[in-house]
Amino acid sequence: MTVISIPDDSLFGVDNLPYGVFSTAGTDPRVGVRVGDHVVDLAKALGDDVFAQPTLNAFMAQGRPRWDAVRARIALLVTGEITDDAVHSVADVTLHLPIAVADYVDFYASENHATNLGRLFRPDAEALMPNWKHLPVGYHGRSSTVVVSGTDITRPSGQRKAPADAAPTFGPSVRLDIEAEMGFIVGVGSPMGSRISPDEFADHCFGAVILNDWSARDIQAWEYVPLGPNLGKSFATSISPWVVPLAALEAARVDTPTQDPTPLPYLQGDEKWGLAIDLAVEWNGHVVSRPPYAQMYWSPAQMLAHTTVNGAATRTGDLFGSGTISGPDKDQRGAFIELTWGGAEPVAVGDEKRTFVEDGDEIAISATAPGPNGTRIGFGEVRARILPA
Amino acid sequence: MTVISIPDDSLFGVDNLPYGVFSTAGTDPRVGVRVGDHVVDLAKALGDDVFAQPTLNAFMAQGRPRWDAVRARIALLVTGEITDDAVHSVADVTLHLPIAVADYVDFYASENHATNLGRLFRPDAEALMPNWKHLPVGYHGRSSTVVVSGTDITRPSGQRKAPADAAPTFGPSVRLDIEAEMGFIVGVGSPMGSRISPDEFADHCFGAVILNDWSARDIQAWEYVPLGPNLGKSFATSISPWVVPLAALEAARVDTPTQDPTPLPYLQGDEKWGLAIDLAVEWNGHVVSRPPYAQMYWSPAQMLAHTTVNGAATRTGDLFGSGTISGPDKDQRGAFIELTWGGAEPVAVGDEKRTFVEDGDEIAISATAPGPNGTRIGFGEVRARILPA
Repeated sequence: MTVISIPDDSLFGVDNLPYGVFSTAGTDPRVGVRVGDHVVDLAKALGDDVFAQPTLNAFMAQGRPRWDAVRARIALLVTGEITDDAVHSVADVTLHLPIAVADYVDFYASENHATNLGRLFRPDAEALMPNWKHLPVGYHGRSSTVVVSGTDITRPSGQRKAPADAAPTFGPSVRLDIEAEMGFIVGVGSPMGSRISPDEFADHCFGAVILNDWSARDIQAWEYVPLGPNLGKSFATSISPWVVPLAALEAARVDTPTQDPTPLPYLQGDEKWGLAIDLAVEWNGHVVSRPPYAQMYWSPAQMLAHTTVNGAATRTGDLFGSGTISGPDKDQRGAFIELTWGGAEPVAVGDEKRTFVEDGDEIAISATAPGPNGTRIGFGEVRARILPA
Repeated sequence: MTVISIPDDSLFGVDNLPYGVFSTAGTDPRVGVRVGDHVVDLAKALGDDVFAQPTLNAFMAQGRPRWDAVRARIALLVTGEITDDAVHSVADVTLHLPIAVADYVDFYASENHATNLGRLFRPDAEALMPNWKHLPVGYHGRSSTVVVSGTDITRPSGQRKAPADAAPTFGPSVRLDIEAEMGFIVGVGSPMGSRISPDEFADHCFGAVILNDWSARDIQAWEYVPLGPNLGKSFATSISPWVVPLAALEAARVDTPTQDPTPLPYLQGDEKWGLAIDLAVEWNGHVVSRPPYAQMYWSPAQMLAHTTVNGAATRTGDLFGSGTISGPDKDQRGAFIELTWGGAEPVAVGDEKRTFVEDGDEIAISATAPGPNGTRIGFGEVRARILPA
């Protein structure tokens, strides 16, 4: 038997307990929970085969009362003695994509981001579209290219055409960008024809991850009218391996910024689902931006309510991204197209200057949130290196 | 033992042999093939458990040589004696969604449709966007709401705002529309980082169905800038239950219309993948339109090549729609917003007039294509009735 020692300043104490899918050499992927610098094998520790599976989906589908019960059991378990073979050092495990992604939707919920992108993509028009303050604008993305942190990203190729070009050309993207986002995962779906109100959010949303919505701005700018982004985004979306349960985010809950005009009733609720999550974007090891999630105009509860208001079904494993998180300050912008103002204002990355992402660059986005009693909990990070086309 | 009698004029002769998923009273859904007015239970008839499953996915994943071998075996089988309990009258079976849908992408490949919609949605701008003749414009849709023919469609609610309104209002869509399309199903996927060239299409695409991309035009018009359609489409997409194998469409293959300018090399191929499929749209039993698939500007092979040119993965069960099929003539338009010119020109539906779809209306889209030696093969139909919100 063993007792897990949790460092005092750990971002993965008993108030966090995020779930992931891990394997050790020669074993199959299975569900674990992170405690300090260790991973606890839940199938072994709890003797429950729902955790012996290669994704969290079966457990997530069991619903909120079960999520709460398991979380309480784990909190007790990891503060006592655990069987040796259920405990691994986090350094010894490989982390896998924690969920089987059903539908993936990406929103656009930061007013600063939407305003900046509007100015850059449509300089001759009003920056914010007339619908933006009435509904959380979003679009469906590609589920098959959601990958876990640590997966290398190959620079995508595609069509791009600068306004001055006579015709589009084909080749590797020259404006490869990131979007620092949070991703939310549906545990319990809803049948076609039903709706999820904002106050029912916690019965359906299992937890959250950090999400990097890789974006090839040159491909996107040429293709996106009138049906929205497609190949500029569909080549890859990276998520962090640890799914932080919604229950761990109680202390992070805050009001969203004032919503004016008042949203339609289906977007209103009594529960506050703004989240005081602080992100940091590292470019080759240098922090270049600290996007504040608390600034997001639309809450994830409103995003889910909007997704289902037309009766669309949701399923276990649905993933929705918040959209790029950008604060009002320049060093709070969560996309490089904003941070460098379309490439016009290079940023310092250590001793070098950068506009867009270059081959060999490594991007890591980390996030933390308030825990109980002045502590902090961590999401870990989503990290990837860019390979040449 | 029994011998299936196939009527001479059947659209489901031995040159068609579409696959579907069926059940009889008290039995589990499993794979069958349609022959004349009968359904052959393939697990029973061939003794192969890959057909005992509730979707075609496992069989589709086995690849083209296997598809060809099974098709040849079935052609022999159904012209001889078959064990009685493997044969059902099509009137006695329930048909199910034939595939587990992975990613769903919808294109916009009809020049007439894109031009008409451009005029209606953006009357003050050039109808066709500058990118339209350079790439097959498409966007990702919602996989979880793809349903089989016969599923009732509940009128969706959502936000809509007419230009004259001061603010959006919420309620049932008052401009509910159809889009008559063909859908193509990926049998063998492709890993992230690889591409499928147009000439590799038949190694990856298993077959085709009729697809109705239900569209709430009022919701769509308000939400779609700048990220494209979302709730205006995500409430439902209907497909026909029989998947016609690509191998059955040999006689239907034609050149696409002349593509000018010449597409970039990754969209070029030697194989012709235009398809002479003729559709008919019935509104409460009255044919109101006959969209000609042969008029589609971009071929499905080009759509798949475009989808993967950035290295995006494809998977067994990926579904992609062609976009609304509209010919140059008014009675060839595959969406009612075009047919009634935004509701300004009601059409006769029997003794009544219609602009958009009303509660209780029933829409059926059928399709046929040339078979060998002057015969025709059928796709059957995709049919649904509209329930009130």
